[in-house]
Amino acid sequence: MDLTRELKRHVTRVERGLDLLLPAEATRPSRLHTAMRYSLQAGGKRLRPVLLIATAELMGANGDDALPAAIAIECVHTYSLIHDDLPCMDDDDLRRGRPTVHKAFDEATAVLAGDALLTHAFALLATSYVGNPALAVALTRELADAAGSRRLVGGQMEDLLAEGKADATPAELEFIHLNKTAAMIEASLVMGGLVGRADDTQVANLRQIGRHLGLAFQIVDDILDVTGDSATLGKTAGKDAAAGKTTYVTLHGLERARRLAREHTDTALGTVQSFSGQTDFLRTLIETMVARSG
Amino acid sequence: MDLTRELKRHVTRVERGLDLLLPAEATRPSRLHTAMRYSLQAGGKRLRPVLLIATAELMGANGDDALPAAIAIECVHTYSLIHDDLPCMDDDDLRRGRPTVHKAFDEATAVLAGDALLTHAFALLATSYVGNPALAVALTRELADAAGSRRLVGGQMEDLLAEGKADATPAELEFIHLNKTAAMIEASLVMGGLVGRADDTQVANLRQIGRHLGLAFQIVDDILDVTGDSATLGKTAGKDAAAGKTTYVTLHGLERARRLAREHTDTALGTVQSFSGQTDFLRTLIETMVARSG
Repeated sequence: MDLTRELKRHVTRVERGLDLLLPAEATRPSRLHTAMRYSLQAGGKRLRPVLLIATAELMGANGDDALPAAIAIECVHTYSLIHDDLPCMDDDDLRRGRPTVHKAFDEATAVLAGDALLTHAFALLATSYVGNPALAVALTRELADAAGSRRLVGGQMEDLLAEGKADATPAELEFIHLNKTAAMIEASLVMGGLVGRADDTQVANLRQIGRHLGLAFQIVDDILDVTGDSATLGKTAGKDAAAGKTTYVTLHGLERARRLAREHTDTALGTVQSFSGQTDFLRTLIETMVARSG
Repeated sequence: MDLTRELKRHVTRVERGLDLLLPAEATRPSRLHTAMRYSLQAGGKRLRPVLLIATAELMGANGDDALPAAIAIECVHTYSLIHDDLPCMDDDDLRRGRPTVHKAFDEATAVLAGDALLTHAFALLATSYVGNPALAVALTRELADAAGSRRLVGGQMEDLLAEGKADATPAELEFIHLNKTAAMIEASLVMGGLVGRADDTQVANLRQIGRHLGLAFQIVDDILDVTGDSATLGKTAGKDAAAGKTTYVTLHGLERARRLAREHTDTALGTVQSFSGQTDFLRTLIETMVARSG
């Protein structure tokens, strides 16, 4: 299959969805809505929304029906980046090669733009799926759990607590990555499944795929922090090392980290095989996510 | 009726609900969950959740059925206070006489505790009302709209933009107050109505009550900033004046501001009369909200 063309089709749909489903820049207060759109237009790879739509299509759903859920996922992901970049958190000036929101605007606007994107995600689910309230509620629950204090926010909290702690244990590192990174990838797959009327077994399988893909994705991130360069990454390379942070690479070494990433990827791919539909795109997408160089 | 006893009954139920419906402090990461509970335990007057439950009871619903929605409203209100208090926003050290979250913990924990409370509000709605998905979706939509970029967050954005701007117009001031203050009071009444199966006309009336009560409440706040003292208020008095901020008092003078508060209160009370149930408690609650001294 032509992955590049298929990926482009998905990304185009997501970009159009972002434009359609977010308030216009001119909406009062304009500064806030401009900041929200600025952060979303940073040209990320849209991995989570594409994963969500690809999963819904694998389950036989129309990709357009998955679009509002996909935009909701991207809103939550983007809010978490805006807040993580704040001076009181990771203090990053660059994101995907552009000034972060608090640099391009100011800190207060960055906090509020993040708050508004998080809230908008739930508004989108409640308005777009109002015709199927049971689906709307299931999507809301999945997203709120994945983004909540035990998972996404909890992962970021423990990540901050582990900062400069070069002796974090493998279990501590796994908690951070399962929650800070894997939770939203897992939610992308599960929400796509819910749109495609997945049964409980299928949802459990999608959760497994998301968990292993999320871990593989994070291990690759740790590897790239050592082997990549800032220009390719679009963010500062070597940041973890400079911060004396425990990563998969410091814990296991480069070779073993690579092997772990491969194992988690293979587990994810194996579970994808349990689905009867057209799994080519999802499998290729997963391979691309862990083979990326930036 | 014995308002004091009735109010105590409601507040006790809300306090118990907060304890039951928030993750325990020991939940990992404990620092995050401790900060969430710290912020909620600051001993506020619980006006919004009590308004919500009182409205549901007025509509004939069981107050216990309204409790998760009431806790969700209090979570969103508390998140907005935590973020508003941040150094990059209003930079407040005290809230209800206690150190604000970023003072008691740190800025990063305050940002994350706010994020987590906002997310938890939507998780609560999706899990507690899963048996009545249409209600869950209606509540989610109402809360997300009231808390979103056009209302709560938008009001705070414009409030920050108006800072030190002593020449804000009455229209600008009204935008801020309708959204920063009235939106959540309106949502409290409407969500209570939704739990009590209010029809469209009743929802529209509840929205009117909330709008006028919200404006009256904010005007009283502006008046108290001039006439109150910090000990009674539990926050720094004279802050608006010191910041050179436009308020109802600077725009209209103390006497006219008092009259405006009275007019909005009377409009709210008049609309309450359109409901056939037992309106005593709601009317007395509204009177108390605008007659408060702190």
